[in-house]
Amino acid sequence: MYTLHSIDGGVCAAHGFYADGIHIGLKKEGAKDCAFIYSETSCEIASVFTTNKMTAAPIRHFRQKGKFKGNFVLINAKNANAMTGSAGISDIDEVLNAVNTKFPQIENPVMSSTGVIGVRLPKAKIIEGAMNFDLSRRDGIAASEAIMTTDTFAKRIAFEVRLDGGKSFRIGAMAKGAGMINPAMATMLCFITTDAEVDQETMQAMVNECVHTTFNAASVDGDTSTNDTVLIMANAQSGAFHRAAFKGTLEAIMLFLAKEMVRDGEGATKLVTYKVTGAKDNSEAEVCAKALSNSLLVKTALFGQDPNWGRIASTVGASGIACDEATLSIWFDEVCVYQKGELLFNEELEPLAAAVMKKNTFTIHCDIGVGEGSFTAYGCDLGHEYVKINADYRT
Amino acid sequence: MYTLHSIDGGVCAAHGFYADGIHIGLKKEGAKDCAFIYSETSCEIASVFTTNKMTAAPIRHFRQKGKFKGNFVLINAKNANAMTGSAGISDIDEVLNAVNTKFPQIENPVMSSTGVIGVRLPKAKIIEGAMNFDLSRRDGIAASEAIMTTDTFAKRIAFEVRLDGGKSFRIGAMAKGAGMINPAMATMLCFITTDAEVDQETMQAMVNECVHTTFNAASVDGDTSTNDTVLIMANAQSGAFHRAAFKGTLEAIMLFLAKEMVRDGEGATKLVTYKVTGAKDNSEAEVCAKALSNSLLVKTALFGQDPNWGRIASTVGASGIACDEATLSIWFDEVCVYQKGELLFNEELEPLAAAVMKKNTFTIHCDIGVGEGSFTAYGCDLGHEYVKINADYRT
Repeated sequence: MYTLHSIDGGVCAAHGFYADGIHIGLKKEGAKDCAFIYSETSCEIASVFTTNKMTAAPIRHFRQKGKFKGNFVLINAKNANAMTGSAGISDIDEVLNAVNTKFPQIENPVMSSTGVIGVRLPKAKIIEGAMNFDLSRRDGIAASEAIMTTDTFAKRIAFEVRLDGGKSFRIGAMAKGAGMINPAMATMLCFITTDAEVDQETMQAMVNECVHTTFNAASVDGDTSTNDTVLIMANAQSGAFHRAAFKGTLEAIMLFLAKEMVRDGEGATKLVTYKVTGAKDNSEAEVCAKALSNSLLVKTALFGQDPNWGRIASTVGASGIACDEATLSIWFDEVCVYQKGELLFNEELEPLAAAVMKKNTFTIHCDIGVGEGSFTAYGCDLGHEYVKINADYRT
Repeated sequence: MYTLHSIDGGVCAAHGFYADGIHIGLKKEGAKDCAFIYSETSCEIASVFTTNKMTAAPIRHFRQKGKFKGNFVLINAKNANAMTGSAGISDIDEVLNAVNTKFPQIENPVMSSTGVIGVRLPKAKIIEGAMNFDLSRRDGIAASEAIMTTDTFAKRIAFEVRLDGGKSFRIGAMAKGAGMINPAMATMLCFITTDAEVDQETMQAMVNECVHTTFNAASVDGDTSTNDTVLIMANAQSGAFHRAAFKGTLEAIMLFLAKEMVRDGEGATKLVTYKVTGAKDNSEAEVCAKALSNSLLVKTALFGQDPNWGRIASTVGASGIACDEATLSIWFDEVCVYQKGELLFNEELEPLAAAVMKKNTFTIHCDIGVGEGSFTAYGCDLGHEYVKINADYRT
């Protein structure tokens, strides 16, 4: 079939892709705050954007273009260009026109932004800064750092996919996000580049499907930003493609980055997998898994390392799905704390459950016991740092 | 028409009602932990219970009785009797049978519980303790204290309603709740007593309607407990009734207690009213108002006293209702911070908005600008104390 090989380079790992991150004066103290991704040849582009109705200008700008081929993305931090009306759109046009004039090899450039909502784009700074881009640089690390906001670490990954028969292609990616999503500094952004030979429709269908079980299954705080973006660019330079290999790798990359975001959740100390099985159908399982990952009471119990399974049961019940205490079972990793109406918790079991809660990564599994539906969601705890980060952000 | 007069007495304010709260060994250090409400004559009873599917035993027990008249409620703190299966029901029967044997004047007693989920009721302690009830006591203060869990103050209110022509009736109430709702120590409970002459159907219809704009419009943490209960008992002793007066007073009492719960929200420092107008319809306005009152990012911005209107706009957009940045307007009290696509925020406006955010009580008003729908919800901020209370509760 095919084999997966982890490689360096992030969004520059695939052939023909270039990227860099530089400081143009948006962040303090010289931190990188502006990045580009450039492909030397034209790309098929697929994308998924936020469901937030207050869609930021970069997304509205992208959508106005309809379906198109392109080879360049400009990304800035510190300003979301959201709630900025038609001025937000013309600001983007102005920036991209200036960049295109300076770099005529650019075709159909797009822009992506993350930062504070409701402030006009500092376009003069961005234009001036972008004049210093060196399109021959392949620094996927710098690019992944430039798009960070409250992220405490940069997020990137790349694989080479080796097919039977000797052909291979590469997929690389970078992402930012530490609230899922923090509208104030807005956004999860994910950029994926590949040299696979794949058409837009195939790629779009795959990315739609993969988003459901990866980024949309992960939550730090249950908020959806104005700027959420997943963008994938394919320049076909490898001349290779394999449907299952491409989709499997894409999903693995997106799941890895989604979990990285949750792990880097603002103030989070734990990455918890919520596995729901036995629901009436997959859709009810999803409702339940997301209710668990978003419950304040569950999240604070995680932070307190308290094996308080009553909060889990109550949240399942409050989620509105078909369920009954007589059919529900709950596990913390392998430790069953409640089974079909039986109160298992006692002085022997509690320390076992408490030991699981002390781990940085574990699974809470709820079997609803009424059907075959399943879904897995990912969440984190909520501690003092989250409050601190979000109460004091703007000031 | 009629006049409202605030009176003392809580659930004992209405004629023929008795109540008390005593210590029976469930809370530490002699704190009151068990209460009763008793009417010397039979009552019509209306009720609204949690929508949580993991319904606690007291509620299932109540529902099994069907429609009935009764005159006694026993309430315990520290144990929710939830997730306890059929044993939870038989525990209640055992407790109530013992109490009824001791006090034969009791008719159709019911029980209400609040506390930890998933632990069998300490029925021996409760039976032993209840033997010490003095049904001739009228201590509405003690009763309201006995039902507290993480509440920092007891919540009660009573009015005498004086009708034209000299007749009058009384309505009194007590409530507990400081998470809306905290499933771990479960629950909002509200008990209302009246000597008005009102039939069950009328009262039930009114309480259903009033719950929608009061308790169901208030949120501390967006969770719905296994035990949420509003119970109203009418013994008709005043011989008086006036439809509009009764309903108006009932709604005022329920709104007061709902706001008291939010004001006492775990760790809360602010009570914020979210007024949504101009939505497509009332139901969309409700979705939006509740999305605002439950948003972690809005709640932490409140705690940080940060006039971060971008989070408000983003939460409106993420709520899924019909909306557009070109028609949205946002006020903090009287200060308009965003008007139909216009970025009003500047160095003069920001301190005015910040001053509103520093108040303990204020209104955030969003006009969606697409229709006539409106709804008002109530919420609080989320600060370090919430995390502390909920992370460390059981331990």
